[in-house]
Amino acid sequence: MAKIAILGFGTVGSGVLEVCRRNAASIARRAGEPVEVKYILDVRDFSDSPDAALFVKDLDTILADPEVRAVVETIGGTKFAYPYVRRCLESGCSVCTSNKEMVATYGAELLALAKEHGVAFLFEASVGGGTPIITPMHQCLVANHISQIQGIVNGTTNFMLTKMKREGMSFDEALKLAQKLGYAETRDPGDDVDGRDACRKIAILGSLACGHHLYPDNIPTWGIRNLTPLDVKAAEMRDCVVKLIAWYRESEDGTLSAGVEPMLVPGNNQLAGVDDVFNAVLVRGDMLGDVVFYGKGAGKLPTASAVVADVIDALKEGSAVHNSLFWQPAEKLDHMLPDNAAYTWHLRVRGGAYGFKLPLEPVRSENGETVCRVDNATPAQIRALSDEMKARGCKLLLAMKQLSDN
Amino acid sequence: MAKIAILGFGTVGSGVLEVCRRNAASIARRAGEPVEVKYILDVRDFSDSPDAALFVKDLDTILADPEVRAVVETIGGTKFAYPYVRRCLESGCSVCTSNKEMVATYGAELLALAKEHGVAFLFEASVGGGTPIITPMHQCLVANHISQIQGIVNGTTNFMLTKMKREGMSFDEALKLAQKLGYAETRDPGDDVDGRDACRKIAILGSLACGHHLYPDNIPTWGIRNLTPLDVKAAEMRDCVVKLIAWYRESEDGTLSAGVEPMLVPGNNQLAGVDDVFNAVLVRGDMLGDVVFYGKGAGKLPTASAVVADVIDALKEGSAVHNSLFWQPAEKLDHMLPDNAAYTWHLRVRGGAYGFKLPLEPVRSENGETVCRVDNATPAQIRALSDEMKARGCKLLLAMKQLSDN
Repeated sequence: MAKIAILGFGTVGSGVLEVCRRNAASIARRAGEPVEVKYILDVRDFSDSPDAALFVKDLDTILADPEVRAVVETIGGTKFAYPYVRRCLESGCSVCTSNKEMVATYGAELLALAKEHGVAFLFEASVGGGTPIITPMHQCLVANHISQIQGIVNGTTNFMLTKMKREGMSFDEALKLAQKLGYAETRDPGDDVDGRDACRKIAILGSLACGHHLYPDNIPTWGIRNLTPLDVKAAEMRDCVVKLIAWYRESEDGTLSAGVEPMLVPGNNQLAGVDDVFNAVLVRGDMLGDVVFYGKGAGKLPTASAVVADVIDALKEGSAVHNSLFWQPAEKLDHMLPDNAAYTWHLRVRGGAYGFKLPLEPVRSENGETVCRVDNATPAQIRALSDEMKARGCKLLLAMKQLSDN
Repeated sequence: MAKIAILGFGTVGSGVLEVCRRNAASIARRAGEPVEVKYILDVRDFSDSPDAALFVKDLDTILADPEVRAVVETIGGTKFAYPYVRRCLESGCSVCTSNKEMVATYGAELLALAKEHGVAFLFEASVGGGTPIITPMHQCLVANHISQIQGIVNGTTNFMLTKMKREGMSFDEALKLAQKLGYAETRDPGDDVDGRDACRKIAILGSLACGHHLYPDNIPTWGIRNLTPLDVKAAEMRDCVVKLIAWYRESEDGTLSAGVEPMLVPGNNQLAGVDDVFNAVLVRGDMLGDVVFYGKGAGKLPTASAVVADVIDALKEGSAVHNSLFWQPAEKLDHMLPDNAAYTWHLRVRGGAYGFKLPLEPVRSENGETVCRVDNATPAQIRALSDEMKARGCKLLLAMKQLSDN
């Protein structure tokens, strides 16, 4: 019998309890022993709960119990989660978490701490919810050098973009619907719509790929607030869909770049058909070529089932299991990761599309704004074009790259 | 330094050597130690090879060397592979294989043998080539009950069906092209086009899902030989594509069914866009919902990279790593697994489409053959319809199910 504790009894935490109970028999069969939740740490009052006896308010109670072999952290954020997780690992408890902010901020440090204490620090659920991505990446692709990752990793914005495409909604209308359905936060939806959530996830995947810590602060991040129905329609005219793409690339000379931004995805790309709240991540290995992992990117039970899978992994003897899930600490850069590649662009301009150094090809105009296509230009060239426009009294309202297979 | 041996130096076996050498540094970093191929067993003469010193003709040489901790089996078939693998496991050597025929035939027995001797028997590369499917299934979905698997698992037939759809080729033309490009065997392409290869793969995935051995002989299997350009066009008129689908399902009452057959895949299904030699497998977990794994289903280096990932896994201490990769022995049934579900059908008939008990809705006719649609009918009802047609001098030339999300 393996005993575990859950820190934070919110959506995912309560899901972990539910999954452990509902699939107890098959989990016991696969884990080689039954798995039981012995404690739940939460500051709130659960004295009316049928599980009231499990709740504790003090981490020490959990750490003092030698029966507890793994701890699930589903508090979220870093303020409490980070010091708690440190203390668990230092006490020789493995930790399984769905907390992307903590992993993106302190991943290298916590992985090293786990190694030092011979325990596991696992976080499959931090990217893609329940969809397996991190484990296949570090375990099944271990014989590959990973040079590229492209993903739709935020379900909320993908739901909104699907509504904007299929039903012609504006950003505001789509956001309101997402809030009504509980997909977006009502008070501040910024983590989703401004791309911060996606940025944390690509920071985690990129760190795993390159082997040292990539900080979210160093990854240029744009959300979807600026997108208009004109952008969506113009994309469609080019047989593309607009998706919020989190990407990571190692170019042939070893330069790393990464970003989060809405991009034009050609209709024949595997990511183009990923709609609603689904996520998909494409990973390119040098031996393997492209693989894509697709599934629901969030949700109580899917995410909890990934945490429980990590728990079963963590309970296995021998920390060597997780040798391949590791990256080194690194300093935060004082600048953003650069992107010097050439792209095909979708530009939305006001005030004229002709006579610039770069040739602009108009796609569609509406209300004094024109979407134009520009081929084979680098981000630096687009910045120069923006300056050129300003000097001529025009304005570059949006510059969106087209996702490339290369 | 971990020493390994390769049995069978064909396409995949030589790929394993190449992957180990090309990515030696990153493999060593991820595995925690360098991995070196010490022996290669092959009956053929490789005395002119730069690696001539590695070749041996006798398995005893390998098994007598205590340095060899894992063996890669890439001989294929069962005649030699099966007794060799048994001997390796009995000698305390872990075995990693890409041999789907052997796993589909003797999987439960070899898994038990490995467990008995405290070693690993791993076969990620047996399904989907290099695409991670088996490891995510038993490891990341360990907290899920898997009730459904639907996959495009044979790249050769998928390439042919893509050509038939895009370029209007006949089956014979598509086969000729696949043979010219080396995707299909010239002498006897039956393993691919008659579905036997796909059948072995779904037998493996189904065994893993239900926990006991499913035999390929018990899985109704049809290939793509009977498909005509009319079928492909009629499917297109219904916004579907024809794909060879390997499927497994556990219905709510616990009844297992499985099959390999060409099916109509609706355009909005995740499997519809899987073209050319690519593979994709959809797995449904009760907690997780649907996940899809997509990638190249074959090829020397992709497949070899999956074998090498298994080798790195097998070299880890503690056989508990693989507790979740297991299924029990079971008797071969004396009948096929039954399928009693209701489907929408695509029927191709000669000699009339009206007046039968089941209402047939004609979709398209050509050269005296008519493709009709029938809704909500079971395979038994279609068999009865076929008898009814015979009695009336008509003929049911093809009956193809439509893939359902349920």
